[in-house]
Amino acid sequence: MWVLSSLRYDPRFHQLLQDAKANGTVIDEVPRPQLDRLSAGGNHQGIIAQISPHEYVSLEDLIAKAKESSDRPVIVVADGITDPHNLGAIARTIEALGLDGLIIPQRRAVGITSTVIKVASGALEHLSVARVVNLVKSLEALKEAGFWIYGIDSNASSDLHKATFDTPVALVVGAEGAGLGVLVQKNCDVMLSIPLAGKTPSLNASVATGMALYEVARQRWNATLDLR
Amino acid sequence: MWVLSSLRYDPRFHQLLQDAKANGTVIDEVPRPQLDRLSAGGNHQGIIAQISPHEYVSLEDLIAKAKESSDRPVIVVADGITDPHNLGAIARTIEALGLDGLIIPQRRAVGITSTVIKVASGALEHLSVARVVNLVKSLEALKEAGFWIYGIDSNASSDLHKATFDTPVALVVGAEGAGLGVLVQKNCDVMLSIPLAGKTPSLNASVATGMALYEVARQRWNATLDLR
Repeated sequence: MWVLSSLRYDPRFHQLLQDAKANGTVIDEVPRPQLDRLSAGGNHQGIIAQISPHEYVSLEDLIAKAKESSDRPVIVVADGITDPHNLGAIARTIEALGLDGLIIPQRRAVGITSTVIKVASGALEHLSVARVVNLVKSLEALKEAGFWIYGIDSNASSDLHKATFDTPVALVVGAEGAGLGVLVQKNCDVMLSIPLAGKTPSLNASVATGMALYEVARQRWNATLDLR
Repeated sequence: MWVLSSLRYDPRFHQLLQDAKANGTVIDEVPRPQLDRLSAGGNHQGIIAQISPHEYVSLEDLIAKAKESSDRPVIVVADGITDPHNLGAIARTIEALGLDGLIIPQRRAVGITSTVIKVASGALEHLSVARVVNLVKSLEALKEAGFWIYGIDSNASSDLHKATFDTPVALVVGAEGAGLGVLVQKNCDVMLSIPLAGKTPSLNASVATGMALYEVARQRWNATLDLR
């Protein structure tokens, strides 16, 4: 880990650096030009950590783990997200809400790059991500495992807030602008949209995913309330 | 407007270029290096338009227009958002949901830059934005105009999904990480958080704003249903 000398004892970094040190991380104090070089001009905010590349899990392991950790797990399937900011924010939302996993395709989509990891703000240290060759086959595997497949697309005629999410949920979200592929849509059990009333025809992919995950989580929170 | 020669008659640009031409825009076909120069290395996707700088509205006009267009208008107050991706996605969400305006502070926050405009995907052509010197005074003006002020902060003890949004709403959202300032929090009528259950302690600012606006909109949609 490399940190600006001026920030080595900054209270904002105290816990982080203490934890890193306790876990055997070597911490070097360096001048700003060295951090600028290490981050290749990226916005490093005074500190850089070197980590091993992201390790994907297999689809089977992701599904098994999700079913183990919850009666009604929630997995996000991202269909061709190309913007690392969006994929990072989606990963962050899934993990922060305590949900169960992310499936991304190997082709025509961004993988877990360093930008994605940074935007995810630590979420990818705790979130299972499977990178699959064939998204449609993955949807079939999810169905067999008892998941109900919900696609989010601005052209769908059913409203997100009128759906009931009381099963294991696989939420399929589409690329910016393009939306979901036809074959992917065909493999969804239900297609849902978020009602829009402005002149802007669509939402940012990570915002739309956030709204859909919020709706799923909200129904679970309310169900818990009802049980009390 | 400058467009790559190879994309001048691309069906994806057809409507856009036709509309631009009908409105008197001069359209030039140019080679890629010229577009690269014009966008200073940014991702131009084959087309660039030159527009006038964003025109802010006054706080008074924004409030008056919002009250004119809706019985229960919804305005977002962004407290110190520094990431243009987040501000752009927030503007896009407000306009796409058909809500009423955005208030941003003049200092320690990003303004409506070209990145913000691009990320907003056209929303800023239709959304009123006021840039104010004093955010706290703006909250007082909103209160006087009948708005109920809701602050979103991950440390708040009340849950977003348990709040009732049946008045004019000003939704105050905070900066990435830092959250809302103390003085701003003091001027909120209610502080709300989104229940998180993962290891990641917070959401992306534009995703959290999206969830809160979805909850406000959802209650309005359901109220409309109830009336039928």
